[in-house]
Amino acid sequence: MTYCLGILTTTGLVLAADSRSNAGVDHVQRVCKLTTIENPGERVIVILSAGNLATSQAVVTGLRQAARGGVAGHDLFAARTLFDVAQIVGDKLRAVSERDGKFVEPYGDPTASFLVGGQIRGEPHRLFEVYAPGNFAEASDRSPFMQIGETKYGKPILDRGLQTDVSLDEAAKLALLSFDATMRSNLSVGAPIDLMRYRAGSLSATDLAVFDEDNAYWQGLRQRYSDGLTALVDSLPPPPHGG
Amino acid sequence: MTYCLGILTTTGLVLAADSRSNAGVDHVQRVCKLTTIENPGERVIVILSAGNLATSQAVVTGLRQAARGGVAGHDLFAARTLFDVAQIVGDKLRAVSERDGKFVEPYGDPTASFLVGGQIRGEPHRLFEVYAPGNFAEASDRSPFMQIGETKYGKPILDRGLQTDVSLDEAAKLALLSFDATMRSNLSVGAPIDLMRYRAGSLSATDLAVFDEDNAYWQGLRQRYSDGLTALVDSLPPPPHGG
Repeated sequence: MTYCLGILTTTGLVLAADSRSNAGVDHVQRVCKLTTIENPGERVIVILSAGNLATSQAVVTGLRQAARGGVAGHDLFAARTLFDVAQIVGDKLRAVSERDGKFVEPYGDPTASFLVGGQIRGEPHRLFEVYAPGNFAEASDRSPFMQIGETKYGKPILDRGLQTDVSLDEAAKLALLSFDATMRSNLSVGAPIDLMRYRAGSLSATDLAVFDEDNAYWQGLRQRYSDGLTALVDSLPPPPHGG
Repeated sequence: MTYCLGILTTTGLVLAADSRSNAGVDHVQRVCKLTTIENPGERVIVILSAGNLATSQAVVTGLRQAARGGVAGHDLFAARTLFDVAQIVGDKLRAVSERDGKFVEPYGDPTASFLVGGQIRGEPHRLFEVYAPGNFAEASDRSPFMQIGETKYGKPILDRGLQTDVSLDEAAKLALLSFDATMRSNLSVGAPIDLMRYRAGSLSATDLAVFDEDNAYWQGLRQRYSDGLTALVDSLPPPPHGG
């Protein structure tokens, strides 16, 4: 399984991915699910991947290979808008599914999905989710976060706490707490967590932090949150009795 | 959708169910998913239902009709143990599935699942989950809660906070917070919440509290928890930057 999260705020984007890949519980490995494609000062594109590992790698590696080829509709560096980027990712996913899907299906689910976030000069920063069929939708201030993979355990903390006008640091903190909830409840989501903060207008993807299990901040965050939550629950009165 | 939760503690059981039933978003109704069958002083059986409403009602109503008929293997009042009760529920589910399943399948999922908790004199209090195929498993102090229906949103709070030696009141409070998380993230789970606290050895099912949306305790719990969580998240330091 996988958990990837994208958050759209007024001042930028937070993009985060776990690193666990598993084909059965006896085949677990660490992979990188966050890919950055950038031309500093001109465009930043971040792609987060979930689903079948061979499919998602074929899409991302294929797009990397095709990049700077200048072929309209295939080249991430030639795309005029992030909408066009999402379409290129969706089209590539369809091509890979068409090529490999029927061979993979007897062994397991061949599908994949993606989050595509970033900015191209002349546009605001944007965030898209590319679904398994290759179609896609865009985040907005009314639905400021998108998730792929194991989405449910980490959703309540975002539903409660996330507003579109929070700072990037606050959004990044909520993102890590969302990963904490997910990793406690699903062993197939695992560290390290790749966490990108992208500041709108910077057109630079330099703020990528990596949190492994023994990272002091990550351990402290989990412990303090857990302790605080226990104290909070303790402080609430018990339900009245019926009958 | 549905959310039902059963918690096994050293001193008793907490059993809770939401009340929303929906066949599409334009067909929403309130139903009771918590059924009590008791012979005070001798046995208390509580059945929580999820899944296809016709299937779950056919099982529970069928068992109610058959009760006190004295037919071994079919009569909840004749069962010697709660293990036997779970088997009767599973067998009834198989009979209903056999009778109705193929007619229902073209229209939707005909399956259902159940939590069965309670106590029969001479035994400790017990909790079982009856799966869609009619087989079942029992809760223990190593896995003290069981969920059916929309299980994921409400799981993190239980994974964090629930220990088998908490008081029934604490377990009941955690159960309501688990429902709060679920109801915020999934509109198809809705109030009122039926909440039963069963004290081991009492052989009496009198403590059933009902929390509708305008219940003062329920509103206060949600608000105080939400405010406390916001303050807790605010108090945590932001993640360090990378790059």
